[in-house]
Amino acid sequence: MIQHPIERLIEKADTAIIHEDFDTLMEIYADDAVLVVKPGTNASGKVQIRKAMEAIAAHFNHTLNVRQAGMKVLEAGDTALVVAKTVVSASNTPAIERNATYVFKKDPSGEWRCTIDNSYGHELLLHKEA
Amino acid sequence: MIQHPIERLIEKADTAIIHEDFDTLMEIYADDAVLVVKPGTNASGKVQIRKAMEAIAAHFNHTLNVRQAGMKVLEAGDTALVVAKTVVSASNTPAIERNATYVFKKDPSGEWRCTIDNSYGHELLLHKEA
Repeated sequence: MIQHPIERLIEKADTAIIHEDFDTLMEIYADDAVLVVKPGTNASGKVQIRKAMEAIAAHFNHTLNVRQAGMKVLEAGDTALVVAKTVVSASNTPAIERNATYVFKKDPSGEWRCTIDNSYGHELLLHKEA
Repeated sequence: MIQHPIERLIEKADTAIIHEDFDTLMEIYADDAVLVVKPGTNASGKVQIRKAMEAIAAHFNHTLNVRQAGMKVLEAGDTALVVAKTVVSASNTPAIERNATYVFKKDPSGEWRCTIDNSYGHELLLHKEA
């Protein structure tokens, strides 16, 4: 089956996370992207997202592994929604499977960029605002 | 708690669906919106979406009821992701709770419009392509 360009981008992002190649990783995000660090805590923009990714790498003893066990892309004009089974594992944690949701946007040059990175999916609904 | 404008729009859409007020309902969608009619079957654009909504109303004996039992909006620039618990019921079916995912986009006039309407959420991953 032919991969959607966004599926290839997500694979590239996963590889970059595993290798802690944050320069490559940041290329995949839009300038105004939002990352759900954990339910209730978001990072906004590339500076915050990079810092969050570096902190996450350290939190998992630099052994973080992430892969998609399934993905579906829904495209509408210059916007796309990805629903994915994301498997996260590390030396200090058992593998966790998450129902992740990602939103991508096509920039004026035709490149897809991640604008919302919510690997927690509907777990957000369990979080009560302080 | 103050409602996000998109939460109010979704409530308006739910009321419009219940009353089969398809003119009001269609105002909420972007011109290039995509609706997941069922996993594997999408409607694209307002003409197809309206037809699909009319068929869904008839399928449920004109007793379709839809409401959100929880919503969370993640905003990034002119794009927003909504994760929601959507409860669907009708005279000929027991109530079903779905983990829905919706994407909204701000149009040039500053109005949010639904661009991807996927009430099935991650159920899409269970559908095998023909």
